Amino acid sequence: MFSQFDTDMMSRAIDLAKRGVYTTAPNPNVGCVITQGDDIVGEGFHFRAGEPHAEVFALRAAGEKANGAIAYVTLEPCSHFGRTPPCADALIAANVSRVVCAMVDPNPNVAGRGIQRLRDAGIQVDVGLLQPQAEALNPGFIKVMKTGMPYVQLKLAASLDGRTALANGKSQWITGPEARADVQVFRAKAGAVLSTSQTVLDDNPSLNVRWEQFPLDVQADYDIKTLRQPIRVILDTDAKVKIDAQLFSLDGEVLLVTATPQAVSLGDDVEVIQVNRQGNGLDLSATLRALASKGINHIWVEAGATLAGSLLNADLVDELIVYQAPKLMGQDARALANFGGLTAMEQVPSFDLTDVCQIGNDVRLRMKKQ
Amino acid sequence: MFSQFDTDMMSRAIDLAKRGVYTTAPNPNVGCVITQGDDIVGEGFHFRAGEPHAEVFALRAAGEKANGAIAYVTLEPCSHFGRTPPCADALIAANVSRVVCAMVDPNPNVAGRGIQRLRDAGIQVDVGLLQPQAEALNPGFIKVMKTGMPYVQLKLAASLDGRTALANGKSQWITGPEARADVQVFRAKAGAVLSTSQTVLDDNPSLNVRWEQFPLDVQADYDIKTLRQPIRVILDTDAKVKIDAQLFSLDGEVLLVTATPQAVSLGDDVEVIQVNRQGNGLDLSATLRALASKGINHIWVEAGATLAGSLLNADLVDELIVYQAPKLMGQDARALANFGGLTAMEQVPSFDLTDVCQIGNDVRLRMKKQ
Repeated sequence: MFSQFDTDMMSRAIDLAKRGVYTTAPNPNVGCVITQGDDIVGEGFHFRAGEPHAEVFALRAAGEKANGAIAYVTLEPCSHFGRTPPCADALIAANVSRVVCAMVDPNPNVAGRGIQRLRDAGIQVDVGLLQPQAEALNPGFIKVMKTGMPYVQLKLAASLDGRTALANGKSQWITGPEARADVQVFRAKAGAVLSTSQTVLDDNPSLNVRWEQFPLDVQADYDIKTLRQPIRVILDTDAKVKIDAQLFSLDGEVLLVTATPQAVSLGDDVEVIQVNRQGNGLDLSATLRALASKGINHIWVEAGATLAGSLLNADLVDELIVYQAPKLMGQDARALANFGGLTAMEQVPSFDLTDVCQIGNDVRLRMKKQ
Repeated sequence: MFSQFDTDMMSRAIDLAKRGVYTTAPNPNVGCVITQGDDIVGEGFHFRAGEPHAEVFALRAAGEKANGAIAYVTLEPCSHFGRTPPCADALIAANVSRVVCAMVDPNPNVAGRGIQRLRDAGIQVDVGLLQPQAEALNPGFIKVMKTGMPYVQLKLAASLDGRTALANGKSQWITGPEARADVQVFRAKAGAVLSTSQTVLDDNPSLNVRWEQFPLDVQADYDIKTLRQPIRVILDTDAKVKIDAQLFSLDGEVLLVTATPQAVSLGDDVEVIQVNRQGNGLDLSATLRALASKGINHIWVEAGATLAGSLLNADLVDELIVYQAPKLMGQDARALANFGGLTAMEQVPSFDLTDVCQIGNDVRLRMKKQ
């Protein structure tokens, strides 16, 4: 069904899609290539919510050459009117002869409708080329569409012996500046950066994206003028955070999740979500579901051992990203994640290692749920 | 002083030296290449203590072509009668015109004597080509020659949160079979594998080298017929180990280090070294010095958190090799190394990360003392 040329073109479309990785949230990353014979006549990618979809940019670039062309798209073209008209209609109007999609729309309620609309118009549609690579573009978007829950990346930073702070709480800095710059890149890709009131009270962090801290290659790819600040989400069960915390003074939205909204006094600029209490904190599953319903597909968690332990215990972590410094902090130092009571190796939460690399003098491990 | 051809030939000599990495202990790994014009006319490497040195094999291969040739050697040729006659004399007798050495002999008492002997015979000698690479061939030999102390590699295996066993002691298996095969390769390269009576009593390990567990590439390089078993050293302060422990029933030497030699009843096949007590255990510095004096240059330590902590506390570890499984064992699980009481980040033992790689579904980190 697919030729090497088809594969090359879809691969190019996937590369194009990645150019929106810092800016499209909450929309998915999508790329499109339009060809006539052996030539690329149009290319496009989705850049920002509210702006045209990938197909529209590619069709504009192709102009009349779209007539009889093949369109390669990393995601099924939409069939509904959102903030922009349906792309399936635009492809039909341009009179393309064939559409190749890497994957169908992950939303079960609309999946296949765009494809059907194209086929009804007499266009050949082939689906499934480089689907795993296309899926990897949008883990959050896909997970929310399929399950209503966001994709959760839990960031941890620890010493070799799995400690995050000395017994007296001292911890700056465990990892080096290169690792911290890498964290900025993950934050920049996420829909939201999530932390806790405890972390805000202890460290008064900004939790924002600081363009000037990006590695140079990211600065080259990501124009500072288009910088998007992920929403900062603070879990604040008992409404302890005060408006003088640094994160409120910086650009970007802050969302407070609390069990006691009546106790919050942060002014009108801070959106507050109420979630029920569970144990000593919030119902984390309900919290994540509420965030997904606000359009937050992909959450980057930076918090302490308590939230880390609770998320792991509740099996709510999709991916662990651990920065590890080649240091030993000792057995009385603070643990990476507060959970315990395991009595057999079979109970031990285990992950699939997907990537390991050296970053400065630290190591970064990426792991997915098994 | 050195041409590209010189560099290429020394690089080849270093590759040859590596072919003795499993077998030469306690001797160093040495390689030699002999050239006439642009041609290699002889090659050799040291294979096993008591057998000829690299230069002798290379001169034998070169035969009369050694006359007027250049000899590239990774270590200064010896000038003394050991188990074999001095190589400097053999090079002089063969009438080579030039000798290039990567490094002088690390033993300060003989350093330069071989070179002087060659120069006295009218041979041009150039020293220092690829010295760092040549030094990396023999960290143990060099350290003992310079300091009287062996090179110590401490192996640790832990979960992501730095735990070696659950609170109830359960630990099999944290890491996967690929990591365990990799451990076999490190054991095979060491002069001794060191552990403690506590580990022997708890786990009854064999601590030997099992050829059939090597990765296939090592099996291809290392003939089973030449298998060398590193000396197994057990630290047994109070002479608790019994002769029915598995390690005594296997091929290879066992050396017991104890503060109470009068309490040892292991028969005549087990050599016993007496070392003074220090704190709850042995004087580790004296232990290592005693082992070096027995010809053990390079020690691979596999033990529990107590010895690991003591070695780290006493600053006796040259290299840390940590196998890390992508698992979380919880905050009540057992620590990687028993030490603590640090109150400032400046006190934290820190290492330089020299290598990180994925082995199976685990990660291996190699670190050197800063």
